[in-house]
Amino acid sequence: MTALFSAEEFLEYCAALTDAALARRLPAASALPERLHAAMRYGVLGGGKRLRPALCLAATKALGGDPAVAVVPACAVELIHAYSLIHDDLPAMDDDELRRGRPTTHIAYDEATAILAGDALQAMAFEWLAEQGNLSAEVRLAMVQTLARASGSQGMVGGQAIDLAAVGQQVTLAQLEQMHRQKTGALIEASVSLGALTAVPEPDLRHQALASYAAALGLAFQVQDDLLDIEGDTSIMGKTQGSDSARSKPTYPVLMGKDGARRYLNQLLATCQQHLAGFGPEADPLRGMAEFVVTRRY
Amino acid sequence: MTALFSAEEFLEYCAALTDAALARRLPAASALPERLHAAMRYGVLGGGKRLRPALCLAATKALGGDPAVAVVPACAVELIHAYSLIHDDLPAMDDDELRRGRPTTHIAYDEATAILAGDALQAMAFEWLAEQGNLSAEVRLAMVQTLARASGSQGMVGGQAIDLAAVGQQVTLAQLEQMHRQKTGALIEASVSLGALTAVPEPDLRHQALASYAAALGLAFQVQDDLLDIEGDTSIMGKTQGSDSARSKPTYPVLMGKDGARRYLNQLLATCQQHLAGFGPEADPLRGMAEFVVTRRY
Repeated sequence: MTALFSAEEFLEYCAALTDAALARRLPAASALPERLHAAMRYGVLGGGKRLRPALCLAATKALGGDPAVAVVPACAVELIHAYSLIHDDLPAMDDDELRRGRPTTHIAYDEATAILAGDALQAMAFEWLAEQGNLSAEVRLAMVQTLARASGSQGMVGGQAIDLAAVGQQVTLAQLEQMHRQKTGALIEASVSLGALTAVPEPDLRHQALASYAAALGLAFQVQDDLLDIEGDTSIMGKTQGSDSARSKPTYPVLMGKDGARRYLNQLLATCQQHLAGFGPEADPLRGMAEFVVTRRY
Repeated sequence: MTALFSAEEFLEYCAALTDAALARRLPAASALPERLHAAMRYGVLGGGKRLRPALCLAATKALGGDPAVAVVPACAVELIHAYSLIHDDLPAMDDDELRRGRPTTHIAYDEATAILAGDALQAMAFEWLAEQGNLSAEVRLAMVQTLARASGSQGMVGGQAIDLAAVGQQVTLAQLEQMHRQKTGALIEASVSLGALTAVPEPDLRHQALASYAAALGLAFQVQDDLLDIEGDTSIMGKTQGSDSARSKPTYPVLMGKDGARRYLNQLLATCQQHLAGFGPEADPLRGMAEFVVTRRY
């Protein structure tokens, strides 16, 4: 990678940009109803890599667009991601008490507030996309449609449902892959699509190349997540080590072996880079993000 | 009312139209993930008055528009309403086991599936609005924005949060009114706004008159709901009699007395009709709906 800054630096830059925009745009914790708004801010502003916003901004850059225009769409994707984590952590779902080293939202507040905070964050994501003034109505509408599809029953939420149903079940690699394509892949692909739409309103071959990149990246992200889950250090990951395999959720290392999963991860990285072959240095942030995703330790 | 059919007939007609469109557009219960899609259909297609869709169609008609064009927006509002009921019934929220005479979604399925079904229905509402092809991108975007605001923390979900916080608390009439304006009023107002937008894209004085009508109607709906809750017959209401007052939620009859609440209801009806004074017979369905809302027994 020949970029002026590393992937980590790019991620940090995007995270700072996103965090600032989120903190500014989210209703103040003093706005009524206070407890709800405080919980919404807690669930969104508790750190996190901001990988999806960074992908959105990097995709804009790859198509020659102005990343500043992509900040609100990037934040909208992060609102969806944050709401899904809040609901995923609920007792009826994954029942997690710790996220990014802090109590989960339903622990810090209460279950009802956590459910409502997630619901309100989802609505807010579409509100922000719709009112993003720098872009044409057609582009904003395409973004609403893309994000709604990626979030819904054929996307992220569908993946969560498949995941829940898979606990304690024997699943095939194909089923595992379908689950991840929806559960994490759909939103990662939407991040890249939204960024691409802000730069080039009419989908073209470059959009397709970026979509293929994003699909491979989404899987790579999950394979590395599974590997970190069996190797990871709780103090870095901020969640209980081995928590997925402990609840006998299917994982790549279980189905492919650890070495097989690692080989697959490298294949996916190569696939990501191949899809960027037609791009110049403007796609270096996307290249760096792929490297980051497969080498990250957290 | 000089219309060719009664308010009940108009409601039945709209409900049939909405039910058919919802049944056709919702993913089949056989579509993967099956349990999620089955729960989504269960939560949406379990009857209900379809008051919000009817208001949407009636508002379109009042502004000289074609109700057929408003069917998808009407369905989108109903998806939001249905998701809010599914989440509202959860054990961590109102903990209701019966809704419209049937087991609530988390009882018929399970809590996790109910949470996810609600989440997916919300996303689907915005997806449907965005892809509604007969309307301009600007109008569709205005509808997304209107529905998102009405659904979120400053609208419906905010009202639910205020409601939960009010259990067992002393609240003033002003606080009760604010809670209802958000909890049920915001979505009722959005129903009318969306219908109006399909007919007349640029908000004008008629939009304002309809918005004022909707605001009064939303409150009337709630006052009547509270009255039915202390008088109602479980077999008609399909929920446990007195369930709100039993959990010492604040209600209009508690704060104003039963007669006071009834007087207020009639005032609100008069206000609704006044805001429609400038309209001709094309607003008769809206007039009939107001009469229906204050006289309904279920």
